[in-house]
Amino acid sequence: MNTIIDLMMGHRSIRQFTEDPVSDDHVEQAVAAGQMASTSGAIQSYSVLRVRDEQRLEKLVALTGNQTKVVRCGAFFVVCGDTRRHRLLAQRDGVPYDTRCEAFLLAVVDATIFAQNMSLAFESMGYGICYIGGLRNDLPAVSQVLQLPEGLYPLFGLCVGRPAQDPTIRPRLPQPTVLFEENYPDDSSMLAGMEAYDATMLEYFRERGAGDRIWSEEMSAKFSAPRRESLGPYYRDQGANMD
Amino acid sequence: MNTIIDLMMGHRSIRQFTEDPVSDDHVEQAVAAGQMASTSGAIQSYSVLRVRDEQRLEKLVALTGNQTKVVRCGAFFVVCGDTRRHRLLAQRDGVPYDTRCEAFLLAVVDATIFAQNMSLAFESMGYGICYIGGLRNDLPAVSQVLQLPEGLYPLFGLCVGRPAQDPTIRPRLPQPTVLFEENYPDDSSMLAGMEAYDATMLEYFRERGAGDRIWSEEMSAKFSAPRRESLGPYYRDQGANMD
Repeated sequence: MNTIIDLMMGHRSIRQFTEDPVSDDHVEQAVAAGQMASTSGAIQSYSVLRVRDEQRLEKLVALTGNQTKVVRCGAFFVVCGDTRRHRLLAQRDGVPYDTRCEAFLLAVVDATIFAQNMSLAFESMGYGICYIGGLRNDLPAVSQVLQLPEGLYPLFGLCVGRPAQDPTIRPRLPQPTVLFEENYPDDSSMLAGMEAYDATMLEYFRERGAGDRIWSEEMSAKFSAPRRESLGPYYRDQGANMD
Repeated sequence: MNTIIDLMMGHRSIRQFTEDPVSDDHVEQAVAAGQMASTSGAIQSYSVLRVRDEQRLEKLVALTGNQTKVVRCGAFFVVCGDTRRHRLLAQRDGVPYDTRCEAFLLAVVDATIFAQNMSLAFESMGYGICYIGGLRNDLPAVSQVLQLPEGLYPLFGLCVGRPAQDPTIRPRLPQPTVLFEENYPDDSSMLAGMEAYDATMLEYFRERGAGDRIWSEEMSAKFSAPRRESLGPYYRDQGANMD
Protein backbone atom coordinates (compact mmCIF):
# COMPACT_ATOMS: atom_id res chain seq x y z
CA MET A 1 0.00 0.00 0.00
CA ASN A 2 1.04 3.59 -0.53
CA THR A 3 -0.15 6.88 0.96
CA ILE A 4 -2.81 7.34 -1.72
CA ILE A 5 -4.31 3.90 -1.29
CA ASP A 6 -3.99 4.39 2.49
CA LEU A 7 -6.05 7.56 2.21
CA MET A 8 -8.73 5.77 0.23
CA MET A 9 -8.80 2.76 2.55
CA GLY A 10 -9.26 5.10 5.51
CA HIS A 11 -12.25 6.89 4.02
CA ARG A 12 -15.43 7.36 5.98
CA SER A 13 -17.97 10.06 5.41
CA ILE A 14 -17.83 12.84 7.97
CA ARG A 15 -21.14 14.25 9.17
CA GLN A 16 -20.01 16.56 11.98
CA PHE A 17 -17.57 19.35 11.33
CA THR A 18 -15.79 22.04 13.34
CA GLU A 19 -16.62 25.64 12.54
CA ASP A 20 -13.34 26.20 10.67
CA PRO A 21 -14.05 27.44 7.18
CA VAL A 22 -12.33 25.94 4.16
CA SER A 23 -9.90 28.47 2.71
CA ASP A 24 -10.32 29.70 -0.84
CA ASP A 25 -6.84 28.45 -1.59
CA HIS A 26 -7.76 24.92 -0.58
CA VAL A 27 -10.96 25.09 -2.62
CA GLU A 28 -8.99 26.20 -5.66
CA GLN A 29 -6.51 23.35 -5.20
CA ALA A 30 -9.23 20.73 -4.80
CA VAL A 31 -11.20 21.98 -7.80
CA ALA A 32 -8.03 22.12 -9.89
CA ALA A 33 -7.29 18.51 -8.92
CA GLY A 34 -10.85 17.62 -9.87
CA GLN A 35 -10.48 19.30 -13.22
CA MET A 36 -7.36 17.31 -14.03
CA ALA A 37 -9.26 14.02 -13.83
CA SER A 38 -10.26 12.15 -16.97
CA THR A 39 -12.99 13.78 -19.03
CA SER A 40 -14.54 12.28 -22.12
CA GLY A 41 -12.95 13.93 -25.17
CA ALA A 42 -12.11 17.09 -23.18
CA ILE A 43 -15.78 18.00 -22.88
CA GLN A 44 -15.53 18.81 -19.14
CA SER A 45 -19.28 18.77 -18.70
CA TYR A 46 -19.49 19.71 -15.02
CA SER A 47 -19.74 22.75 -12.82
CA VAL A 48 -19.57 23.29 -9.11
CA LEU A 49 -21.30 25.97 -7.08
CA ARG A 50 -20.03 26.96 -3.66
CA VAL A 51 -22.96 28.14 -1.57
CA ARG A 52 -22.12 30.40 1.37
CA ASP A 53 -25.25 32.49 1.78
CA GLU A 54 -26.73 31.54 5.15
CA GLN A 55 -30.34 31.90 4.03
CA ARG A 56 -29.76 29.73 1.00
CA LEU A 57 -27.99 27.13 3.09
CA GLU A 58 -30.87 27.04 5.58
CA LYS A 59 -33.25 26.44 2.70
CA LEU A 60 -31.03 23.62 1.44
CA VAL A 61 -30.97 22.09 4.92
CA ALA A 62 -34.76 21.88 4.79
CA LEU A 63 -34.76 20.55 1.22
CA THR A 64 -32.22 17.80 1.93
CA GLY A 65 -34.27 16.24 4.73
CA ASN A 66 -33.06 18.51 7.54
CA GLN A 67 -29.39 17.72 7.11
CA THR A 68 -27.98 20.46 9.34
CA LYS A 69 -24.43 19.63 8.24
CA VAL A 70 -25.21 21.47 5.01
CA VAL A 71 -24.94 24.74 6.93
CA ARG A 72 -22.65 23.41 9.68
CA CYS A 73 -19.58 22.57 7.64
CA GLY A 74 -16.54 24.41 6.34
CA ALA A 75 -17.79 24.67 2.76
CA PHE A 76 -20.84 23.42 0.93
CA PHE A 77 -20.82 22.67 -2.77
CA VAL A 78 -23.39 21.63 -5.34
CA VAL A 79 -21.94 19.50 -8.14
CA CYS A 80 -23.76 19.65 -11.46
CA GLY A 81 -23.54 17.92 -14.76
CA ASP A 82 -23.16 20.87 -17.11
CA THR A 83 -24.41 20.74 -20.68
CA ARG A 84 -25.03 24.47 -20.75
CA ARG A 85 -21.55 25.36 -21.97
CA HIS A 86 -21.97 23.10 -25.00
CA ARG A 87 -25.47 24.46 -25.63
CA LEU A 88 -24.09 28.00 -25.62
CA LEU A 89 -21.46 27.01 -28.17
CA ALA A 90 -24.06 25.31 -30.37
CA GLN A 91 -26.13 28.48 -30.26
CA ARG A 92 -23.08 30.61 -31.07
CA ASP A 93 -22.20 28.37 -34.01
CA GLY A 94 -25.78 28.03 -35.26
CA VAL A 95 -25.83 24.23 -35.01
CA PRO A 96 -28.32 22.02 -33.19
CA TYR A 97 -27.49 20.65 -29.77
CA ASP A 98 -28.47 17.03 -29.66
CA THR A 99 -29.25 15.84 -26.21
CA ARG A 100 -29.84 12.16 -25.86
CA CYS A 101 -29.14 9.58 -23.17
CA GLU A 102 -25.46 9.72 -24.17
CA ALA A 103 -25.19 13.47 -23.50
CA PHE A 104 -26.88 13.04 -20.14
CA LEU A 105 -24.68 10.11 -19.20
CA LEU A 106 -21.51 11.94 -20.24
CA ALA A 107 -22.44 14.85 -17.99
CA VAL A 108 -23.17 12.61 -15.00
CA VAL A 109 -19.99 10.54 -15.42
CA ASP A 110 -17.76 13.55 -16.07
CA ALA A 111 -19.14 15.44 -13.07
CA THR A 112 -18.78 12.44 -10.78
CA ILE A 113 -15.17 11.72 -11.78
CA PHE A 114 -14.46 15.40 -11.13
CA ALA A 115 -16.23 15.33 -7.76
CA GLN A 116 -14.42 12.25 -6.54
CA ASN A 117 -11.00 13.75 -7.30
CA MET A 118 -12.09 16.94 -5.58
CA SER A 119 -13.26 14.96 -2.55
CA LEU A 120 -10.01 13.02 -2.28
CA ALA A 121 -8.01 16.21 -2.68
CA PHE A 122 -9.87 17.69 0.28
CA GLU A 123 -9.35 14.52 2.29
CA SER A 124 -5.64 14.64 1.48
CA MET A 125 -5.58 18.11 3.08
CA GLY A 126 -7.08 16.72 6.28
CA TYR A 127 -10.69 17.63 5.63
CA GLY A 128 -13.63 15.28 5.90
CA ILE A 129 -16.29 15.09 3.23
CA CYS A 130 -19.83 13.86 2.81
CA TYR A 131 -21.76 13.52 -0.44
CA ILE A 132 -25.31 14.80 -0.02
CA GLY A 133 -27.59 12.68 -2.20
CA GLY A 134 -30.50 14.25 -0.33
CA LEU A 135 -30.01 17.21 -2.63
CA ARG A 136 -32.08 15.19 -5.11
CA ASN A 137 -35.07 14.97 -2.75
CA ASP A 138 -36.67 18.00 -4.37
CA LEU A 139 -34.54 19.32 -7.20
CA PRO A 140 -37.18 21.69 -8.59
CA ALA A 141 -37.08 23.58 -5.27
CA VAL A 142 -33.27 23.35 -5.01
CA SER A 143 -33.01 24.67 -8.53
CA GLN A 144 -35.16 27.64 -7.64
CA VAL A 145 -33.03 28.44 -4.59
CA LEU A 146 -29.86 28.29 -6.67
CA GLN A 147 -31.44 29.85 -9.78
CA LEU A 148 -29.97 27.19 -12.02
CA PRO A 149 -30.36 27.86 -15.74
CA GLU A 150 -31.28 25.26 -18.37
CA GLY A 151 -28.67 22.63 -19.15
CA LEU A 152 -27.49 22.20 -15.55
CA TYR A 153 -28.20 18.90 -13.82
CA PRO A 154 -27.52 19.13 -10.09
CA LEU A 155 -26.36 15.70 -8.95
CA PHE A 156 -25.40 15.91 -5.27
CA GLY A 157 -24.14 18.24 -2.62
CA LEU A 158 -20.76 17.98 -0.97
CA CYS A 159 -20.03 18.98 2.62
CA VAL A 160 -16.37 19.65 3.39
CA GLY A 161 -14.79 20.61 6.69
CA ARG A 162 -12.51 19.73 9.55
CA PRO A 163 -13.86 16.54 11.16
CA ALA A 164 -15.45 16.88 14.58
CA GLN A 165 -16.00 13.13 14.85
CA ASP A 166 -13.99 10.00 14.22
CA PRO A 167 -16.38 7.34 12.93
CA THR A 168 -15.26 3.79 12.32
CA ILE A 169 -14.76 2.55 8.79
CA ARG A 170 -17.80 0.75 7.35
CA PRO A 171 -17.06 -2.63 5.76
CA ARG A 172 -17.79 -3.08 2.08
CA LEU A 173 -19.16 -6.01 0.07
CA PRO A 174 -16.73 -8.93 -0.23
CA GLN A 175 -14.64 -8.42 -3.34
CA PRO A 176 -15.88 -11.62 -5.04
CA THR A 177 -19.36 -10.05 -5.20
CA VAL A 178 -18.04 -6.96 -7.02
CA LEU A 179 -15.02 -7.98 -9.12
CA PHE A 180 -15.45 -10.74 -11.67
CA GLU A 181 -13.27 -12.56 -14.15
CA GLU A 182 -15.00 -12.58 -17.54
CA ASN A 183 -18.56 -13.33 -16.41
CA TYR A 184 -21.09 -12.06 -13.95
CA PRO A 185 -21.75 -14.79 -11.37
CA ASP A 186 -24.94 -16.79 -11.00
CA ASP A 187 -27.68 -15.64 -8.67
CA SER A 188 -27.13 -18.19 -5.93
CA SER A 189 -23.45 -17.37 -5.44
CA MET A 190 -24.28 -13.67 -5.47
CA LEU A 191 -26.97 -14.15 -2.83
CA ALA A 192 -24.56 -16.21 -0.71
CA GLY A 193 -21.95 -13.46 -0.97
CA MET A 194 -24.45 -10.85 0.15
CA GLU A 195 -25.53 -12.98 3.08
CA ALA A 196 -21.91 -13.28 4.19
CA TYR A 197 -21.77 -9.49 4.06
CA ASP A 198 -24.92 -9.30 6.19
CA ALA A 199 -23.02 -11.12 8.94
CA THR A 200 -20.09 -8.69 8.69
CA MET A 201 -22.42 -5.71 8.77
CA LEU A 202 -24.46 -7.10 11.64
CA GLU A 203 -21.31 -7.19 13.73
CA TYR A 204 -20.43 -3.67 12.62
CA PHE A 205 -23.89 -2.34 13.53
CA ARG A 206 -23.83 -4.07 16.92
CA GLU A 207 -20.39 -2.69 17.75
CA ARG A 208 -21.69 0.79 17.05
CA GLY A 209 -24.78 0.24 19.18
CA ALA A 210 -27.03 0.42 16.11
CA GLY A 211 -28.92 -2.77 16.95
CA ASP A 212 -29.56 -5.82 14.80
CA ARG A 213 -29.71 -4.36 11.31
CA ILE A 214 -29.66 -6.61 8.27
CA TRP A 215 -28.05 -4.89 5.31
CA SER A 216 -29.68 -6.98 2.59
CA GLU A 217 -33.16 -6.48 4.03
CA GLU A 218 -32.57 -2.76 4.23
CA MET A 219 -31.59 -2.79 0.56
CA SER A 220 -34.71 -4.58 -0.65
CA ALA A 221 -36.86 -2.28 1.52
CA LYS A 222 -35.07 0.82 0.22
CA PHE A 223 -35.86 0.03 -3.40
CA SER A 224 -39.38 -1.32 -2.84
CA ALA A 225 -41.06 2.08 -3.18
CA PRO A 226 -40.52 4.94 -5.62
CA ARG A 227 -37.98 7.50 -4.43
CA ARG A 228 -37.35 11.02 -5.66
CA GLU A 229 -40.00 10.83 -8.34
CA SER A 230 -39.42 14.44 -9.37
CA LEU A 231 -35.92 13.56 -10.57
CA GLY A 232 -36.55 12.39 -14.12
CA PRO A 233 -39.16 15.08 -14.87
CA TYR A 234 -36.85 17.74 -13.42
CA TYR A 235 -33.84 16.71 -15.54
CA ARG A 236 -36.10 16.72 -18.60
CA ASP A 237 -37.28 20.23 -17.70
CA GLN A 238 -33.62 21.23 -17.54
CA GLY A 239 -33.17 20.00 -21.10
CA ALA A 240 -32.18 16.37 -20.70
CA ASN A 241 -33.57 13.73 -22.98
CA MET A 242 -32.93 10.19 -21.91
CA ASP A 243 -34.27 8.49 -24.99
CA MET B 1 0.39 20.55 -2.68
CA ASN B 2 0.82 17.04 -1.39
CA THR B 3 1.61 13.72 -3.08
CA ILE B 4 -2.06 12.94 -3.70
CA ILE B 5 -2.84 16.28 -5.31
CA ASP B 6 0.47 15.98 -7.20
CA LEU B 7 -0.68 12.64 -8.61
CA MET B 8 -3.98 14.14 -9.73
CA MET B 9 -2.36 17.22 -11.24
CA GLY B 10 -0.02 14.98 -13.23
CA HIS B 11 -2.82 12.90 -14.73
CA ARG B 12 -3.00 12.26 -18.44
CA SER B 13 -4.70 9.34 -20.08
CA ILE B 14 -2.31 6.69 -21.33
CA ARG B 15 -3.12 5.08 -24.65
CA GLN B 16 0.00 2.99 -25.24
CA PHE B 17 1.08 0.37 -22.78
CA THR B 18 3.94 -2.06 -22.36
CA GLU B 19 3.10 -5.75 -22.44
CA ASP B 20 3.51 -6.14 -18.66
CA PRO B 21 0.35 -7.59 -17.20
CA VAL B 22 -1.24 -6.07 -14.11
CA SER B 23 -0.85 -8.48 -11.18
CA ASP B 24 -3.90 -9.87 -9.42
CA ASP B 25 -2.61 -8.38 -6.21
CA HIS B 26 -2.59 -4.89 -7.67
CA VAL B 27 -6.06 -5.40 -9.11
CA GLU B 28 -7.34 -6.47 -5.70
CA GLN B 29 -5.77 -3.43 -4.05
CA ALA B 30 -7.19 -1.01 -6.61
CA VAL B 31 -10.67 -2.54 -6.46
CA ALA B 32 -10.55 -2.51 -2.64
CA ALA B 33 -9.62 1.18 -2.75
CA GLY B 34 -12.51 1.76 -5.15
CA GLN B 35 -14.91 -0.03 -2.86
CA MET B 36 -13.94 2.17 0.09
CA ALA B 37 -15.10 5.29 -1.71
CA SER B 38 -18.39 6.95 -0.81
CA THR B 39 -21.51 5.02 -1.77
CA SER B 40 -25.04 6.27 -1.31
CA GLY B 41 -26.48 4.62 1.81
CA ALA B 42 -24.14 1.63 1.48
CA ILE B 43 -25.92 0.44 -1.66
CA GLN B 44 -22.66 -0.19 -3.57
CA SER B 45 -24.44 -0.43 -6.90
CA TYR B 46 -21.49 -1.23 -9.13
CA SER B 47 -19.60 -4.18 -10.49
CA VAL B 48 -16.42 -4.56 -12.47
CA LEU B 49 -15.54 -7.27 -14.96
CA ARG B 50 -11.95 -8.02 -15.83
CA VAL B 51 -11.83 -9.33 -19.38
CA ARG B 52 -8.77 -11.40 -20.29
CA ASP B 53 -10.06 -13.71 -22.99
CA GLU B 54 -8.23 -12.75 -26.19
CA GLN B 55 -11.19 -13.44 -28.47
CA ARG B 56 -13.50 -11.35 -26.35
CA LEU B 57 -10.98 -8.53 -26.22
CA GLU B 58 -10.61 -8.58 -30.00
CA LYS B 59 -14.37 -8.28 -30.31
CA LEU B 60 -14.36 -5.35 -27.89
CA VAL B 61 -11.60 -3.67 -29.92
CA ALA B 62 -13.90 -3.75 -32.93
CA LEU B 63 -16.90 -2.59 -30.92
CA THR B 64 -15.10 0.39 -29.38
CA GLY B 65 -14.09 1.88 -32.72
CA ASN B 66 -10.96 -0.15 -33.27
CA GLN B 67 -9.24 0.89 -30.06
CA THR B 68 -6.42 -1.62 -30.08
CA LYS B 69 -5.33 -0.56 -26.60
CA VAL B 70 -8.28 -2.59 -25.28
CA VAL B 71 -6.30 -5.74 -26.04
CA ARG B 72 -2.85 -4.13 -25.81
CA CYS B 73 -2.83 -3.14 -22.16
CA GLY B 74 -2.00 -4.79 -18.87
CA ALA B 75 -5.61 -5.29 -17.81
CA PHE B 76 -8.95 -4.36 -19.29
CA PHE B 77 -12.02 -3.77 -17.17
CA VAL B 78 -15.67 -3.04 -17.82
CA VAL B 79 -17.29 -0.93 -15.13
CA CYS B 80 -21.04 -1.36 -14.68
CA GLY B 81 -23.74 0.26 -12.67
CA ASP B 82 -25.20 -2.76 -10.89
CA THR B 83 -28.85 -2.87 -9.86
CA ARG B 84 -28.96 -6.64 -10.16
CA ARG B 85 -27.89 -7.30 -6.58
CA HIS B 86 -30.79 -5.21 -5.27
CA ARG B 87 -33.19 -6.85 -7.69
CA LEU B 88 -32.13 -10.28 -6.44
CA LEU B 89 -32.77 -9.18 -2.86
CA ALA B 90 -36.19 -7.78 -3.78
CA GLN B 91 -37.03 -11.10 -5.41
CA ARG B 92 -35.79 -13.02 -2.37
CA ASP B 93 -37.86 -10.85 -0.03
CA GLY B 94 -40.95 -10.82 -2.24
CA VAL B 95 -41.07 -7.04 -2.59
CA PRO B 96 -41.20 -4.96 -5.76
CA TYR B 97 -38.03 -3.39 -7.12
CA ASP B 98 -38.79 0.13 -8.14
CA THR B 99 -36.53 1.40 -10.83
CA ARG B 100 -36.85 5.03 -11.67
CA CYS B 101 -34.46 7.76 -12.74
CA GLU B 102 -33.16 7.89 -9.16
CA ALA B 103 -32.16 4.19 -9.16
CA PHE B 104 -30.41 4.62 -12.51
CA LEU B 105 -28.63 7.76 -11.37
CA LEU B 106 -27.52 6.14 -8.11
CA ALA B 107 -25.98 3.26 -10.04
CA VAL B 108 -24.14 5.56 -12.45
CA VAL B 109 -22.82 7.86 -9.72
CA ASP B 110 -21.84 5.00 -7.40
CA ALA B 111 -20.03 3.15 -10.17
CA THR B 112 -18.19 6.25 -11.32
CA ILE B 113 -16.99 7.21 -7.83
CA PHE B 114 -15.76 3.63 -7.48
CA ALA B 115 -14.02 3.70 -10.86
CA GLN B 116 -12.24 6.96 -10.21
CA ASN B 117 -10.80 5.70 -6.92
CA MET B 118 -9.77 2.50 -8.67
CA SER B 119 -8.11 4.52 -11.45
CA LEU B 120 -6.19 6.71 -9.04
CA ALA B 121 -5.12 3.67 -7.04
CA PHE B 122 -3.66 2.17 -10.21
CA GLU B 123 -1.96 5.45 -11.06
CA SER B 124 -0.49 5.60 -7.56
CA MET B 125 1.12 2.21 -8.28
CA GLY B 126 2.77 3.60 -11.41
CA TYR B 127 0.22 2.39 -13.94
CA GLY B 128 -1.40 4.51 -16.60
CA ILE B 129 -5.14 4.39 -17.23
CA CYS B 130 -7.60 5.32 -19.94
CA TYR B 131 -11.37 5.37 -19.65
CA ILE B 132 -12.96 3.83 -22.73
CA GLY B 133 -16.21 5.68 -23.42
CA GLY B 134 -16.23 3.97 -26.82
CA LEU B 135 -17.59 0.95 -24.98
CA ARG B 136 -20.95 2.70 -25.32
CA ASN B 137 -20.77 2.78 -29.14
CA ASP B 138 -22.77 -0.42 -29.36
CA LEU B 139 -23.76 -1.68 -25.95
CA PRO B 140 -26.21 -4.30 -27.21
CA ALA B 141 -23.29 -6.05 -28.94
CA VAL B 142 -20.91 -5.52 -26.01
CA SER B 143 -23.53 -6.94 -23.71
CA GLN B 144 -23.80 -10.03 -25.86
CA VAL B 145 -20.03 -10.54 -25.85
CA LEU B 146 -19.93 -10.24 -22.07
CA GLN B 147 -23.23 -12.03 -21.50
CA LEU B 148 -24.45 -9.36 -19.12
CA PRO B 149 -27.66 -10.23 -17.28
CA GLU B 150 -30.54 -7.82 -16.61
CA GLY B 151 -29.88 -5.04 -14.14
CA LEU B 152 -26.30 -4.37 -15.27
CA TYR B 153 -25.56 -1.07 -16.98
CA PRO B 154 -22.10 -1.08 -18.57
CA LEU B 155 -20.79 2.48 -18.42
CA PHE B 156 -17.22 2.49 -19.74
CA GLY B 157 -14.15 0.38 -20.15
CA LEU B 158 -10.88 0.98 -18.35
CA CYS B 159 -7.46 0.19 -19.78
CA VAL B 160 -4.68 -0.16 -17.21
CA GLY B 161 -1.02 -0.86 -17.78
CA ARG B 162 2.55 0.31 -17.61
CA PRO B 163 2.85 3.46 -19.75
CA ALA B 164 4.76 3.13 -23.03
CA GLN B 165 4.37 6.83 -23.78
CA ASP B 166 4.73 10.08 -21.89
CA PRO B 167 2.12 12.48 -23.23
CA THR B 168 1.98 16.09 -22.10
CA ILE B 169 -0.71 17.21 -19.71
CA ARG B 170 -3.77 18.69 -21.43
CA PRO B 171 -4.91 22.07 -20.06
CA ARG B 172 -8.37 22.32 -18.54
CA LEU B 173 -11.01 25.03 -18.63
CA PRO B 174 -10.11 28.12 -16.60
CA GLN B 175 -11.40 27.66 -13.08
CA PRO B 176 -13.76 30.67 -13.24
CA THR B 177 -15.76 28.82 -15.93
CA VAL B 178 -16.24 25.78 -13.68
CA LEU B 179 -16.30 26.94 -10.04
CA PHE B 180 -18.85 29.57 -9.03
CA GLU B 181 -19.77 31.43 -5.90
CA GLU B 182 -23.54 31.19 -5.35
CA ASN B 183 -24.70 31.70 -8.94
CA TYR B 184 -24.04 30.33 -12.37
CA PRO B 185 -22.53 33.12 -14.51
CA ASP B 186 -24.21 34.87 -17.41
CA ASP B 187 -23.79 33.60 -20.95
CA SER B 188 -21.43 36.29 -22.19
CA SER B 189 -18.86 35.78 -19.42
CA MET B 190 -19.09 32.01 -19.92
CA LEU B 191 -18.50 32.40 -23.66
CA ALA B 192 -15.55 34.73 -23.02
CA GLY B 193 -14.05 32.18 -20.61
CA MET B 194 -14.37 29.43 -23.20
CA GLU B 195 -12.76 31.59 -25.84
CA ALA B 196 -9.81 32.21 -23.55
CA TYR B 197 -9.54 28.44 -23.20
CA ASP B 198 -9.60 28.10 -26.99
CA ALA B 199 -6.41 30.17 -27.10
CA THR B 200 -4.73 27.98 -24.46
CA MET B 201 -5.77 24.83 -26.27
CA LEU B 202 -4.71 26.16 -29.67
CA GLU B 203 -1.21 26.60 -28.29
CA TYR B 204 -1.33 23.11 -26.79
CA PHE B 205 -2.46 21.54 -30.08
CA ARG B 206 0.20 23.41 -32.05
CA GLU B 207 2.95 22.35 -29.65
CA ARG B 208 1.91 18.75 -30.17
CA GLY B 209 1.84 19.16 -33.95
CA ALA B 210 -1.94 18.65 -34.01
CA GLY B 211 -2.59 21.69 -36.15
CA ASP B 212 -4.97 24.60 -35.57
CA ARG B 213 -7.77 22.99 -33.64
CA ILE B 214 -10.40 25.14 -31.94
CA TRP B 215 -11.76 23.42 -28.85
CA SER B 216 -15.07 25.27 -28.70
CA GLU B 217 -15.85 24.55 -32.35
CA GLU B 218 -15.06 20.90 -31.82
CA MET B 219 -17.49 20.85 -28.92
CA SER B 220 -20.40 22.35 -30.84
CA ALA B 221 -19.69 19.98 -33.74
CA LYS B 222 -19.47 16.99 -31.41
CA PHE B 223 -22.94 17.55 -29.98
CA SER B 224 -24.60 18.65 -33.23
CA ALA B 225 -25.59 15.13 -34.26
CA PRO B 226 -27.04 12.22 -32.30
CA ARG B 227 -24.41 9.92 -30.83
CA ARG B 228 -24.76 6.41 -29.48
CA GLU B 229 -28.48 6.28 -30.09
CA SER B 230 -28.72 2.70 -28.88
CA LEU B 231 -27.75 3.78 -25.37
CA GLY B 232 -31.11 4.78 -23.89
CA PRO B 233 -32.99 1.86 -25.47
CA TYR B 234 -30.27 -0.55 -24.31
CA TYR B 235 -30.36 0.62 -20.69
CA ARG B 236 -34.15 0.31 -20.76
CA ASP B 237 -33.81 -3.24 -22.10
CA GLN B 238 -31.51 -3.94 -19.16
CA GLY B 239 -34.27 -2.85 -16.80
CA ALA B 240 -33.65 0.87 -16.36
CA ASN B 241 -36.52 3.30 -16.30
CA MET B 242 -35.53 6.91 -16.54
CA ASP B 243 -38.97 8.41 -15.92
